[in-house]
Amino acid sequence: MTYCVGLYLEEGLVMLADTRTNAGVDNISTYSKTFIWENPGERTITMMSAGNLAVTQAVVALIEEGLVPEEHPDGDIHTMYNVPTMFKAARLVGQAVRQVYIEDAEAMEAQNTTFSASFLLGGQIRGRGMRLFQVYAAGNFINATEDTPFLQIGEHKYGKPILDRALDYGGTSLTEGTKLALLSMDSTIRSNLTVGFPLDLVIYRKDELKVGVKVRIKEDDPYFKDLSSRWSEALRAAYQAFPSPDWA
Amino acid sequence: MTYCVGLYLEEGLVMLADTRTNAGVDNISTYSKTFIWENPGERTITMMSAGNLAVTQAVVALIEEGLVPEEHPDGDIHTMYNVPTMFKAARLVGQAVRQVYIEDAEAMEAQNTTFSASFLLGGQIRGRGMRLFQVYAAGNFINATEDTPFLQIGEHKYGKPILDRALDYGGTSLTEGTKLALLSMDSTIRSNLTVGFPLDLVIYRKDELKVGVKVRIKEDDPYFKDLSSRWSEALRAAYQAFPSPDWA
Repeated sequence: MTYCVGLYLEEGLVMLADTRTNAGVDNISTYSKTFIWENPGERTITMMSAGNLAVTQAVVALIEEGLVPEEHPDGDIHTMYNVPTMFKAARLVGQAVRQVYIEDAEAMEAQNTTFSASFLLGGQIRGRGMRLFQVYAAGNFINATEDTPFLQIGEHKYGKPILDRALDYGGTSLTEGTKLALLSMDSTIRSNLTVGFPLDLVIYRKDELKVGVKVRIKEDDPYFKDLSSRWSEALRAAYQAFPSPDWA
Repeated sequence: MTYCVGLYLEEGLVMLADTRTNAGVDNISTYSKTFIWENPGERTITMMSAGNLAVTQAVVALIEEGLVPEEHPDGDIHTMYNVPTMFKAARLVGQAVRQVYIEDAEAMEAQNTTFSASFLLGGQIRGRGMRLFQVYAAGNFINATEDTPFLQIGEHKYGKPILDRALDYGGTSLTEGTKLALLSMDSTIRSNLTVGFPLDLVIYRKDELKVGVKVRIKEDDPYFKDLSSRWSEALRAAYQAFPSPDWA
């Protein structure tokens, strides 16, 4: 399993992924699920992946090689460094997933392995708006909006309530969003053993056209540990201070 | 879907269930999933159910009729009013599920309907300890302990993080536990449309041998609404007050 979350905020993007992969509980490894394609000042694109590792690695390899767009079979090869828009970047990811599906899905099914893959894709290209997409295994995709300013892939349930309650497109700063993404991840790691450290965090400030922060957070990171314990204390203090119901 | 949560605390039990059932998103009904068998001063047993409604209703009907225990085929019929221990009460539920499985599962499978059922069973019988069980569709069961003082059935993920962080067998009072159960339910209702109001809440204080509080909480309940909005405010205030990371 995996947990990746992307926040789409007025100030920019916060994207956070774990690095654990597992084939059964006794076969656990660390793989980065975070990929950045960047030409500073012109474009920056970050992708995070969840699902079957063989599928997602094949998708990344195809994206790296580049693909001729389905809609322009006589055109040039598209890569993350030359797609003209973030929409086309999402199409490139979608096309790569479909190609892996055509090549591998039947044989995987014969081995009772599910073809699964999903991606978060966020970034900006000069002269265009900042975007955050979620690409499905079918290669189609949705984008985050002001109404729903976050997208999640993988084990999304444990970390969703805090985002539902606290996140706001215009009202949450990049720094506050970073704390919320980390708390959402902390709740997930506590409840699902197949989501684990280290974490890859990418922060992008809108219109800067280069990644502002890319940091790997280890299990013993003092800031993360402090944030987690402060959160537990604050929750406890909060609900204890609430009035009691008449009927209790 | 359904969400039921039971807290096993030093002071007693808190059990909370929603009442929504659905067969598709366009076929939603309200059914109580909470059943109480009580002989005040001698025993009180509360059961909450999740899963296929036809299965759980059949299980309740069999329990009401009573069953001859599998291990004593020549013995008397067991009902919730005469089982000698909570362990035997859980066996009675388990035996009822197995009987429904024998009768219905094959035909259900032929219609591509999954046989699903799970139950929380909490209470106390005079002279015995207070217990809280979770009974599975196979009729076997586990009980809550001081280390893991809560059990959940149905849509359990959204409401788990707060319990993981804040609940403590010895340190959480019945009143505090009630607030936590309600907040856990609130997080679930916000995220899963198939979990909904009204809620059935049962509070049992250990050794009283009768239910202390049984209340139905509607969507416009002023206490619940206040609790929910205070919680959102407190979460926001808490994470905003935390220090920012160096790297953000």
